[in-house]
Amino acid sequence: MTVRLNTRLLLRLVATTQCFTKRALCVDSKARKVTVLGSGNWGTAIARIIGDNVRKKPHLFHNKVQMYVYDSLINGRKLSEIINTEHENVKDLPGFKIPPNVIANPNAANSVEDADILVFNMPPMFLDSVCQKIKSSIKPDVLAISLIKGLDHRKKGLHLVSNQIKESLGLQHVSVMMGANLADEVAKGFFSETTIGSRLEEHGYIFKELLNQPYFKVNVVKDVETVEFCGAVKNIIAMGAGIIDGLGYGNNTKAAIIRTGLEEAYEFSRAFLNESNMATFFESCGFADFIVTCYGGKHRLAGESFVKMNKPFSELQDVVPELKFRRLPGPDSLEAVYHLVRQEQIEDKFPLVTSLYKVCFEAHHPTELIAALKRHEEFPVL
Amino acid sequence: MTVRLNTRLLLRLVATTQCFTKRALCVDSKARKVTVLGSGNWGTAIARIIGDNVRKKPHLFHNKVQMYVYDSLINGRKLSEIINTEHENVKDLPGFKIPPNVIANPNAANSVEDADILVFNMPPMFLDSVCQKIKSSIKPDVLAISLIKGLDHRKKGLHLVSNQIKESLGLQHVSVMMGANLADEVAKGFFSETTIGSRLEEHGYIFKELLNQPYFKVNVVKDVETVEFCGAVKNIIAMGAGIIDGLGYGNNTKAAIIRTGLEEAYEFSRAFLNESNMATFFESCGFADFIVTCYGGKHRLAGESFVKMNKPFSELQDVVPELKFRRLPGPDSLEAVYHLVRQEQIEDKFPLVTSLYKVCFEAHHPTELIAALKRHEEFPVL
Repeated sequence: MTVRLNTRLLLRLVATTQCFTKRALCVDSKARKVTVLGSGNWGTAIARIIGDNVRKKPHLFHNKVQMYVYDSLINGRKLSEIINTEHENVKDLPGFKIPPNVIANPNAANSVEDADILVFNMPPMFLDSVCQKIKSSIKPDVLAISLIKGLDHRKKGLHLVSNQIKESLGLQHVSVMMGANLADEVAKGFFSETTIGSRLEEHGYIFKELLNQPYFKVNVVKDVETVEFCGAVKNIIAMGAGIIDGLGYGNNTKAAIIRTGLEEAYEFSRAFLNESNMATFFESCGFADFIVTCYGGKHRLAGESFVKMNKPFSELQDVVPELKFRRLPGPDSLEAVYHLVRQEQIEDKFPLVTSLYKVCFEAHHPTELIAALKRHEEFPVL
Repeated sequence: MTVRLNTRLLLRLVATTQCFTKRALCVDSKARKVTVLGSGNWGTAIARIIGDNVRKKPHLFHNKVQMYVYDSLINGRKLSEIINTEHENVKDLPGFKIPPNVIANPNAANSVEDADILVFNMPPMFLDSVCQKIKSSIKPDVLAISLIKGLDHRKKGLHLVSNQIKESLGLQHVSVMMGANLADEVAKGFFSETTIGSRLEEHGYIFKELLNQPYFKVNVVKDVETVEFCGAVKNIIAMGAGIIDGLGYGNNTKAAIIRTGLEEAYEFSRAFLNESNMATFFESCGFADFIVTCYGGKHRLAGESFVKMNKPFSELQDVVPELKFRRLPGPDSLEAVYHLVRQEQIEDKFPLVTSLYKVCFEAHHPTELIAALKRHEEFPVL
């Protein structure tokens, strides 16, 4: 009996070999301990995935997962205690059981002791204080991944959260994960895709093993900065898309603002990031996440409410029930991006971001966004 | 007094010069006569724009515009007569006045006599017969642009509508226009963007002058085939997005199918078109049109109805009021694309298109689309 080795079979064999090589990269005897820092709805949804994966992969991960919880009282009981007894985050992701091997810990420093992997997942404004708390307790060779969407607007220049973590904790590499991932839909097990950005292949491999699920498909790319920038900037554009919704324009105009936003994001990434690959925008962190955020996210709702209720973004959490207790990172990210545009005197290259800033913070009329779409130049790379 | 010439000013001056060069390309004494072939809702919306533009630009265009109308009786009156007296297409775009310089003509051959510009805008299945009717009446140097979204599935290989027009009429170049353009929203004057693909710069310039409006922003690129292919393939993906809606999945899964669809479209365009620029997908014809079609278009509705009503696509027009009298081009385009994929034995490279075909035409279960999303390989260009 002869075996015919056709091209497709050959390709599959090559793929299998590559897969073995990848495995060889990382399978050592060490079972890594994981700590998730943050327990909001996304933090909790991710802790559920991680809790499940570490149990299935004892050769790669330690069975117990720590989850740092910023404690609060829920009907007189501490949230961390509720999570550890009921195995449910009744505050931020009610209705979904958390695997019992995920241990809520209200002490940040204690939660990272012996950790080999840190998963950062809290609102960006709390990052500094958490880093200060854990700084002296982490292992020097700890691996870190940030799921935080935001830009630091208090410093000059473009400050990515991953760089902030690197600087605060003295780490050389921080990976990121961003994608079209509404937390409650991931919790429900609806099929979703996501993108991990990892400079080093072995880090990417470990994080993929930790986070991939049949219903949560991880793709790894090396273009870390663009992945992270997309995660922050999509919130800005979603504020604009919400404003368009609030003004009562239709699908065409909304698609135009999302498209122009992505184009400005791409131009911005080329101008201000160390690396930027156009293909990264084809990943889940790119236009897929822009779609999800501009159609189903909280920033869209905030933009719409901003127009309809005629209230500043900082007051929306008091009047929109779905935004209660939330401090959205979008306005800070918009400030960060616009400050850089203004500082470099390139407002005419970024008319959408510029007018969005003026509409959101300087009381310009919301229809100025339409004027900005008209002003936006044709795509210079063609 | 000294004048400081900074970089930005210099760039603007260069831009102005380019603009003058472009004008010099085309401004001759000839006022071109325009014929719009087709009077559906998109054809009528575009005829309104053209009718307005030719009046404003007598140095470029003849004042009278012919519109070929496939006549039908509306309450005992011919549609062409209603349009020429009421200046409204009461059948396909009711409620919007058509400029009186647009003349409805039920005779295709007569409508193109003396025409310098043909604007093709009818369902793709009627193209052949219209071309046969006008063939002997057109000028040999006529300019043509196609706004038709579809692929010819009856022939082997990939047959773009623009090539079909070229072959039928013996033309050397046919431009195309595709974009995130729901017809009724354009008619309402909601800001929209669109993309013209023109191989020759002077054709692109003429068509932009004919079609651009303050509320309808035209961008011209040279990558004609990708622009046209996007316009056809978005309908296929929208059928899939509608199926996802019908199955009750959320935003994440819908974004995943749109993203994967765009990725397969890009791979397909690289494999089968003579040219394909990734940047073209950033234009309005690219993901912006995918968004609009997958959220607000008829193909999305058809996909959703296909699942909920459990009827084949060919019978949906009988049971869904919004699809009545419409023969959607998406199923034919899907057949054309899948036939090519099967013929080349590359189903494993295009799992989404393959499973979509099997779900739509071979009674496979709709959830097979989710399995296809899981199977889809990581993006090979990274």
